[in-house]
Formats: sequence, structure tokens, C-alpha cells
Amino acid sequence: MLSDRALAAFRSALGADRVFDDAATRAVYACDETPRRVEPDAVLFPTSHDEVVALARIAFEHRIALTPRGAGSGNVGGALPAPGSVVVSFECMRRVLEFDPANRLIVVEAGVVTGEIDRIARSAGLFYPPDPGSSTYCRIGGNLAMNAAGPRAVKYGVTRDYVLGLRAVTGSGQEIRTGCRTTKGVTGYDLSRLLVGSGGTLALITEATLKLLPAPEAVATLRVCFNSNRAALDAVSRVMQQAVVPCALEFMDHRAIDAIRPTGAADDLPPGTRALLMVEADGAAEDVPRQIAALEQALAGDGLLGMKSGFERDEITLLWTARKSLSHAVKQIAPLKINEDVVVPVSQLADLVDFIDHTAHAHRLAVVSFGHAGNGNLHVNLMVHPDDADEMERAHLAHDAILLRVLALGGTLSGEHGIGTEKRRFVDREIDPPTLDLMRAIKLQFDPHGLLNPGKLFPD
Amino acid sequence: MLSDRALAAFRSALGADRVFDDAATRAVYACDETPRRVEPDAVLFPTSHDEVVALARIAFEHRIALTPRGAGSGNVGGALPAPGSVVVSFECMRRVLEFDPANRLIVVEAGVVTGEIDRIARSAGLFYPPDPGSSTYCRIGGNLAMNAAGPRAVKYGVTRDYVLGLRAVTGSGQEIRTGCRTTKGVTGYDLSRLLVGSGGTLALITEATLKLLPAPEAVATLRVCFNSNRAALDAVSRVMQQAVVPCALEFMDHRAIDAIRPTGAADDLPPGTRALLMVEADGAAEDVPRQIAALEQALAGDGLLGMKSGFERDEITLLWTARKSLSHAVKQIAPLKINEDVVVPVSQLADLVDFIDHTAHAHRLAVVSFGHAGNGNLHVNLMVHPDDADEMERAHLAHDAILLRVLALGGTLSGEHGIGTEKRRFVDREIDPPTLDLMRAIKLQFDPHGLLNPGKLFPD
Repeated sequence: MLSDRALAAFRSALGADRVFDDAATRAVYACDETPRRVEPDAVLFPTSHDEVVALARIAFEHRIALTPRGAGSGNVGGALPAPGSVVVSFECMRRVLEFDPANRLIVVEAGVVTGEIDRIARSAGLFYPPDPGSSTYCRIGGNLAMNAAGPRAVKYGVTRDYVLGLRAVTGSGQEIRTGCRTTKGVTGYDLSRLLVGSGGTLALITEATLKLLPAPEAVATLRVCFNSNRAALDAVSRVMQQAVVPCALEFMDHRAIDAIRPTGAADDLPPGTRALLMVEADGAAEDVPRQIAALEQALAGDGLLGMKSGFERDEITLLWTARKSLSHAVKQIAPLKINEDVVVPVSQLADLVDFIDHTAHAHRLAVVSFGHAGNGNLHVNLMVHPDDADEMERAHLAHDAILLRVLALGGTLSGEHGIGTEKRRFVDREIDPPTLDLMRAIKLQFDPHGLLNPGKLFPD
Repeated sequence: MLSDRALAAFRSALGADRVFDDAATRAVYACDETPRRVEPDAVLFPTSHDEVVALARIAFEHRIALTPRGAGSGNVGGALPAPGSVVVSFECMRRVLEFDPANRLIVVEAGVVTGEIDRIARSAGLFYPPDPGSSTYCRIGGNLAMNAAGPRAVKYGVTRDYVLGLRAVTGSGQEIRTGCRTTKGVTGYDLSRLLVGSGGTLALITEATLKLLPAPEAVATLRVCFNSNRAALDAVSRVMQQAVVPCALEFMDHRAIDAIRPTGAADDLPPGTRALLMVEADGAAEDVPRQIAALEQALAGDGLLGMKSGFERDEITLLWTARKSLSHAVKQIAPLKINEDVVVPVSQLADLVDFIDHTAHAHRLAVVSFGHAGNGNLHVNLMVHPDDADEMERAHLAHDAILLRVLALGGTLSGEHGIGTEKRRFVDREIDPPTLDLMRAIKLQFDPHGLLNPGKLFPD
């Protein structure tokens, strides 16, 4: 339990109205999007970098574990409080410190909502490419911790690719500045990218200098229906072997399509549709039709049932209906979702989906797969009833089998959700012992007492 | 001096024909492109990852410092042997281990020539974007160590952006594998990007998995002449504030143009040309003319003297004559080049060039500036006579003043050459003490006895 002395120190540093240890607040901050719950001892709401320095120094002095938290919208328990820890919520650090369109950069505090960054950028003809599904409410600090991405990653890359520099506070309360303000720079080690994706285990990121790009003038969408997963994924391979890089290349398998049928969102799909691709192109208005024509040509092939294109906003929204209704529809299948975020080389995706199908069948499980096929990134959702012990046992067997297959196919455990609590037991199957030892050794340099987000990322 | 026992151990591990300690070999490997010379005790030529592991273990056991070396084409003494060290040349590790066009990746040993990677990629309609000026002879291992770039960085980014994964050997002879084979991945810390740009001080990179992109179908070039540096750099700012991102945006100042006049390469420039931009666009053949038109519009403005475009290979080659003749011409000005590689935010570039002009004048120095203006990356060359003590003194004063100005403008010491021996005394002006301490602490985890490329990157 947090000592009175520590609590008083936090209150003195942040102000009494920024430190909560009441039951209601602790309950609210007990979980992220994973089903687990652990109540923290208290929740802190710093409002500036300096306050984060102050609280980190108090935590260091009193040996208090800290659980950093953005919006709590993560899928892997990254913001799940460690027992006895104090949550550091970045919600109140949402200032845009600088917007410099001439140099295509923005400097934001860690609590700024990701979509807000994009909105500001667009006001000057620029945009912020990473577009996680939660972008209307997730915070950039969480995106940086997990190296978040989204559909546009196939063309534009992930959060890591847009970080020029960071301001952060280590586990011993040291302030550090990483990177620079320019698009090139090789002075010292690249600590920015070491912090990105480290899940809050190395330092508390307080401010980020982000790179922006010119906003594409136009976008157009193709909804492409196939009679089988393999037909759709063969088309993905063809798309990734020609020159036009789409700005989205999303896949839904037949179980995902079945899931949305009750909502009516599949009503206008051609009969026999067993897999669906959403393909987008963006760029100059004059050039997008050329890109779409090239993509249509690459997509055409065995098993194609129909292709619809949309160039106007309303048409595009309509085409996305099936995909957008998926998240809600999946939740109707079973109360609990065991959510994977695996990646394999694009050419192996069809084999992986076959294997998942086979595994789901063998273990009598409902498994819905969809994801960012252009990156080989598949969200595999095992839909289960937590009270059904037998089903849960089968789900865990299937889950392990799928992860092993991913690694055997040359893949990785996580594309954009991170490791958190949920996947850490598999990490040493992907990373060899000396490399993992080095990561642990690096962790100790930033956080000698292991106070930053304990119980995450590393296997026990 | 290297002990007989150590020498015998190296010979036993690599074979006698891969270990040289004769005077001639040691003399050849005593320098890179910087004027300094230090003869190593021996030169090793491993032919595989396993041999690098073996030699690193021998070096660890005998506490022998290692100086890794690609082609020795670096500009900052990165491959300059530390006194008493043994050079590890990667020249004999030039196997392409895998080329997988379907997944847009290539796996190469560290000694493969960078241009060779691009050549192989293009055989399958792909390309490797980073294009350092030395790409016909530099080795990918050196590019990875320094995070090399080139003109295309303005559109396509730097070496760091194309690394999916690495195989490497630490200073204690541990083998590590970083990253993955896919374009997304967030399992564990991003050690790949920690190694990229670390100048060989953390680990010996033996193999790299690199990302490739679809090759642009067409390219077109603009050579744009202005009556002043400021007019040219204002045009750069305008280009970087519209939507078409050029694949090259190179600048030459008036002293650079003066330097090429004796060669005849400036003969067809409009009279009064005092600054020159080379601007390129690439993409689909149908789309490049649209890009060029947009770029021409952005480039037009005060001080423009003339703009020539080229769409065919011969025209393009001709337009690049002035720029390509620069490197050789500059060497005629004075025997020694003090070569900077600074970066400032693009909007500050005109101020920096003004300051350099003023400083050159005040110190009576010949300073030639050119570079990758789209990234704000300027190569500043102070041309001096090393025997002229007074001039050398003035050059060092000017050099210091320029670097301080770069930092004051929000810039960084190096964009693509790295730090090596030549810039390390300035590093602590850019990186604050706690951040630098962390870098040193990280270094110790990889290399506990400080055997990997000692005397580089960190200030004393």
C-alpha cells in the first residue's frame, strides 16, 4: 500500500487535485481493453513534463512502481496496473507545444489525442499518417509506447517512422532528450526509436516531435469480393508485386463476413462472398484514377466475385460499411475475445489463414480473422465463453499453435498492439536468449529499480 | 602490439590467409577518407558471421580493440584504426543470402556493395532507396554503421528506414538477432535502429534484412538557377510547402559554382547564376510530368534565372554535369577539406548559409557549401592548406562558429556521415549529460570492455 509519506509527496508535487486514491478512481483505472483488472494504489494526473520529473523522482525515492497510461485503449494489458503500482495518466498533458508547417513538424505532449494531431496537420495541408482504429480517442503517448499503426501503414509506415525526437523521464527521474528536429540526424545512438515500442518500460515519454507529410489531395476505395480466403490473399500478393502501393489493403475472412451478416452490412456483397479486401489509393486528384486502374488489374484473378469502386466521400463510406461494422459484430459471437496481432511475410499470409481455419475447426472454435494484409498483419480473434472451461482450454491450445505457426512462417508476435502482459510469455520463443538478455540489461540502465511498467513485455 | 598468441588464435579461427599483419596491408588499412592515419596491428578478413563471432571472442579474451571497416569511404574517421587495434574488414563478406521479391526484402552480408543491392532489386522491379554518393563502392555495413543517406532521402528516408532486422556480434562475442522479416513488428526493444548509426561501437553487424520498394517507372530532372543563395533556398522552402515531394532537392552555393567554372561544367548556366538547385521527381511515367509542373510552379519566384527540365536519360545526365563535377573540382581549391555534414530545419537553411558566407568572409576562408536542401542537410567544406598554421587556426574558429550556429538554429551535427573521430568533441554540445550518460551505459551492455571501435562517437 502506498505510504502516507509518498502520497503527501505526490500531492505536494502535483497539487492535491492531481492525486487520487479513492476507490472510484482506482476502479476506473484498473484496466485497459483487456479483460483483466488490477486496481492501482493511486492515480496521478501530471500536467507538464516538469511534474512528470517530480513524480518520477518521488517514485524512485520511495521505490513505487509506475504504470503509464494514455487513453487505456490498448489491447495487450500495456496499461494494466501492476499490483501496488501507481497509474500515471497523461490525460491532462494535451498541449500542442508547437506546430511548424514550414518544417513539417509538430511538438505535442504525450496526452494529445492522435486524431487531433492529424486534424491540426490537415489545417495546413499536411497529415499525420499513423491511423490506429482508436485514433479518435487514443493518446499519442500510448501510440509511441506500442508503436501503433493502422491501415495506412502499408504505404506510410508506423508511429516509429514519424518520431523525430522525444522528451522523456527515466525510472530514476532523469530527464532525457532524444533525436532532433530535422528529418536527418545521426548524432549519438537512436534512443527515440528505442523508446518507441518499449511499452513504457524504459522511460515516461512526455513530449514528442513528430514528422508530418503533405496531405494527399484525393483518395479512392475498392471493395473487392472473393469466393475464398486464398483467392483474396493471392490477390494481396499480386498487389504487393506491382508498383502502386495502396494506402490501405485490408482483409476480412469468411468468418468475419459471417459475423456481420446479422447486421445487414453484408447484404450488398455478391452471393458466395467468402473473403473481402478493402483497397485504397491516395495522391493527387489527377493521379488516383491511374492508381485505381492499376490496382484493379492486379486484383483481378481466380475467385474474384466483384469489385466496386468509390471516388466520392459518400461512396467510400458506404463501401467501408462491412469492414466498419465488424468490430461491434464480432462482440456478439461470444463474450470474450482472445485477440492476436500477428504478422507474417505477405507471401505466407494465405498459408497462415489456412492453418488458422484448420486449427479453429479442429478445436471447435469461432475464430474471426481480419487485418492489414498489405503488411502481413492479421488480427486473429478467438471468440470464447470464459465460463466454458473446456472451450477455454481448447482456445489456449489453438492460440499457442497459431503463434508457433506464425514464428515458423518467419513472422512476429505483434505488429502494432505491442506485448504488454498478454503476450510476454511468448516473447522468448521469438527473441533468442542473448538478445533478450541485452534488452533486460538496457532496461536496467533506464530503470535500475524496475519501477516503470513492471510485469510487461519481458517473460518472467 | 598484438601478442603472438592472439595472432595465432585469429589465424586458427579464420585461416592464415585471412589474417594480415605485414606492413603493406597495415598501411593500406590505416585510414578512411579523412586525412588522419593510424596503422592497425593487423587486419582480419572474416568470410562469414561465424568467423566474426570467433574473432570477437578471441578479441574479448585477449582484450584487443577492433575497428570495423566497410569500404573505408567514410568522411569522419569512423573506420580510422584506434591505436593498437585490429581492423575487421567486411570486404570478403559479400554474399546475398536471400532475395525475396514477393516480400520485398533482401538479406545480405555486411560487405555487399550498396549499389549492388539496388541493382539486384531492380532486376525484379524493386529498388533500394538509400543512395550515398559512394554507392558504387561503399559497403552496406558502413552505411548501417553511419545511417547513410543521399539525395533520395528527401522523399524516401535514410538507411535506418530500410532495416527490417540485423544479425550482429557484440563486444563480448555474443551473437544477436534484432528485428524481424516483416514491415511491421513490435516484439521487444528496437535494437535494429539502436545499432544503425551507432558507428560500430555497439556490435559488429554481419547480416542485414533490408526492405525494398517498387522501383519508380520514370524520373525527370530540373536544373534551376538563381541569382543568390537566399533566392534558391526560399525556393526550397516553397517546394517543401507544397504536396509534391521531389526525390532529390540538391543545392549548390555560389562558391560551389565558382569551383566548377574552370572545368567548363558551369558554361551553360545563365549569366549571374549564384546558386543552383537540382530537383527530381519520380513515379509512374504518366504522373511524372504533373509532378514536374507542380515543382516548376513552386520553384518560380524572385531571383530565378532559368529552369531546364530533362525527361530522358541523356538530358538528365547533362543537367547533372555541374553537380557531378563538384566533388573533383572542390579538391582543386586547396589540399585539405574540412568537411561538415550539418542539418538545420529547412526554413533555417537560408539563415545558415548567410551565416556561413559571413563567417567565411570574416575569416578569409574558401568555404564551399552544397547538399541535400530538402532535408536541411548541408555539406560545408572548409578548403584549407594544412601547412598554413594561420589559415588552419582561422578554419577551426570558423568551424566551431558554424557548428554552434547549427545547434542554435535547432539543427544537428551530422545528417548522414556520422560522428566518428572527427565530430565527437562537439557531441556534448548537442546531447545533454543525462542522455549521453545513458548512451555510454548502453554501450557498456553491448561492449563491457570497450573493444568495439574505441575513440569514436563519444567525447572524451
